[in-house]
Amino acid sequence: MSETLTIHSKVNGSYSVKFISHLSQQLSADVENGNCIFVIDEKILELFSAELSVVIKNGRYVLISSEEQNKTMDFAQEVIRKLLELNVRKNDALIAIGGGITQDIVAFISSVLFRGIEWRFYPTTLLAQCDSCIGSKSSINFDQYKNLIGTFNPPAQIFIYTDFLNTLTESEIRSGIGEMLHYFFTEGIDLAQQISDNYEGLLTNRALLSNFISNSLRIKKAIIEIDEFDTSIRHIFNYGHTFGHAIEAITHYAIPHGQAVSIGMDLANYISLKKGILSEQHFQQMHEILKKNIPPFVFTLENIDAYCTALSRDKKNKGNQLGSILSYGPGNVKKVFIDIDQNLKDTFLEYSSLFGK
Amino acid sequence: MSETLTIHSKVNGSYSVKFISHLSQQLSADVENGNCIFVIDEKILELFSAELSVVIKNGRYVLISSEEQNKTMDFAQEVIRKLLELNVRKNDALIAIGGGITQDIVAFISSVLFRGIEWRFYPTTLLAQCDSCIGSKSSINFDQYKNLIGTFNPPAQIFIYTDFLNTLTESEIRSGIGEMLHYFFTEGIDLAQQISDNYEGLLTNRALLSNFISNSLRIKKAIIEIDEFDTSIRHIFNYGHTFGHAIEAITHYAIPHGQAVSIGMDLANYISLKKGILSEQHFQQMHEILKKNIPPFVFTLENIDAYCTALSRDKKNKGNQLGSILSYGPGNVKKVFIDIDQNLKDTFLEYSSLFGK
Repeated sequence: MSETLTIHSKVNGSYSVKFISHLSQQLSADVENGNCIFVIDEKILELFSAELSVVIKNGRYVLISSEEQNKTMDFAQEVIRKLLELNVRKNDALIAIGGGITQDIVAFISSVLFRGIEWRFYPTTLLAQCDSCIGSKSSINFDQYKNLIGTFNPPAQIFIYTDFLNTLTESEIRSGIGEMLHYFFTEGIDLAQQISDNYEGLLTNRALLSNFISNSLRIKKAIIEIDEFDTSIRHIFNYGHTFGHAIEAITHYAIPHGQAVSIGMDLANYISLKKGILSEQHFQQMHEILKKNIPPFVFTLENIDAYCTALSRDKKNKGNQLGSILSYGPGNVKKVFIDIDQNLKDTFLEYSSLFGK
Repeated sequence: MSETLTIHSKVNGSYSVKFISHLSQQLSADVENGNCIFVIDEKILELFSAELSVVIKNGRYVLISSEEQNKTMDFAQEVIRKLLELNVRKNDALIAIGGGITQDIVAFISSVLFRGIEWRFYPTTLLAQCDSCIGSKSSINFDQYKNLIGTFNPPAQIFIYTDFLNTLTESEIRSGIGEMLHYFFTEGIDLAQQISDNYEGLLTNRALLSNFISNSLRIKKAIIEIDEFDTSIRHIFNYGHTFGHAIEAITHYAIPHGQAVSIGMDLANYISLKKGILSEQHFQQMHEILKKNIPPFVFTLENIDAYCTALSRDKKNKGNQLGSILSYGPGNVKKVFIDIDQNLKDTFLEYSSLFGK
């Protein structure tokens, strides 16, 4: 497969996503061109040591541990220190090999080191391949605040090597599927239905994911090219996320992101149903697809207040109103401000009594 | 005076520099518009407490100590923490009141907080008013590396209140004059000659500086609008700086920046003279102007090697060649790569024996 997608960006002009089938060949090209330092998730080096041997031989690389707690300015400084030991120069490119956390750290460093140096990206998780690799955002945590710090700084080039997916856990695949479903539902029902029809197969035969990854990126590309800095239409991609983030918060991230987003979409759809803006038929149709990707989760009198509090902290709120993306049917989502009140709380509990497991 | 200059920027479209004569009036307008947090050099608050009382009453401000050692990512994080205590939001603007260090810290924070929030600037030093307030650069030190980290992020608005200059030391004024001379010499001889003719008066009557500040900004504006990101023609503004930075380094910043730049220009001109690209007459004409702004400094057998080592570390070097901006006459500077060798060392010592004091 040699498909290439070009993304137009206000930050760096344009950048490309290339699907590659020979990893070491592409890495050799990077090494031969020179002027680059690799920043690699240490787990990836372990799993793909043969493919990465050309990078290791070259010697200009930094290994990082891709944990959420390393997404800080302090850790970024530690990595910069290691880059300086490797004599990093302004005309070097940083080449990130890893998932979203590796991406965030490298993209942030590339924004601020020498007032900006080039970076390229080999995403290794399904989430990073189908979603975060494009869109320009870098996100750094600050004290208790998730993703408070960051920049808009897309890589110059992205290389998608789907064989990376073979080593992912089933949970990581489900997480990526949730993220893809959220893109697909902003366009219509077809791709989401295809995911559902092939759900078990996708978990075991990762080669099948490739087509969905490129469709996911195609849908995201169309919107980020219009609203790269997330001030207007890009908000539709918060679909499932506002409700999903709050689930992640109250479960202390025990539920993987994309699966929390799947619950989030089902919840948003249920609110739409109750508001009479989504038909029973459409709700059911989407619910049948989503439920395959929804892990055990219930609202109880114990966690519902914490959930509403988490929602009330969403940075997109206006006063006590939640800025939520609701579905009016597959392919039709809109931003609606809803009150965080007893009525909303009851809706969540009702949803849970009907569909919680 | 209500002169306004508009700078076109690739980062934020355009921004304005407005000369104001009523500080508290402008600050009141900021406070009344709301959605802003002030970040103020604590020394400025002390000196201008009456003018700043409207900001203090408002309560949304952070005081910082503007010292070079605070130009770090760690200190930026401390300031972010204080901004969060003041409940900073994405739609707030940060309003910096201070000199270049305050500018660097606030500009950097504004680049990364919430993936970018607006900032405005009231420069209080001559260096900041005549030079650094425009041009988009923010600079943060990292370990032993000066200005290794940074971004291109101009303020949305700049307000120049020249009464701030009344509290500056003579040394700070001389430093600003050095920076202005370097802009003037890239254009011709006239403005530099005017500085020289009024030199003593400028030190005591700071109101006279206003005209030179706006000329300095006018010259800088023309170049940064072409090469904001400093990849080509903006390099001419390194005139005096390459040689000046190395003097700052070996004297441990005992010589103020703009005065080191004055020595740097005289040194660059002497190299031009020796190379036969600058006439004796032009060298003397510029030397007579520069020497008024040059503090006691000599090269000796003790410091000359350290000086050449400092030059060899300049990030604009190519191999062992120093990328230096040399003068071909007033209004005519060009980049020339010169060897850092015994010949260059002898030229410095010769200059010092002739003009050192």
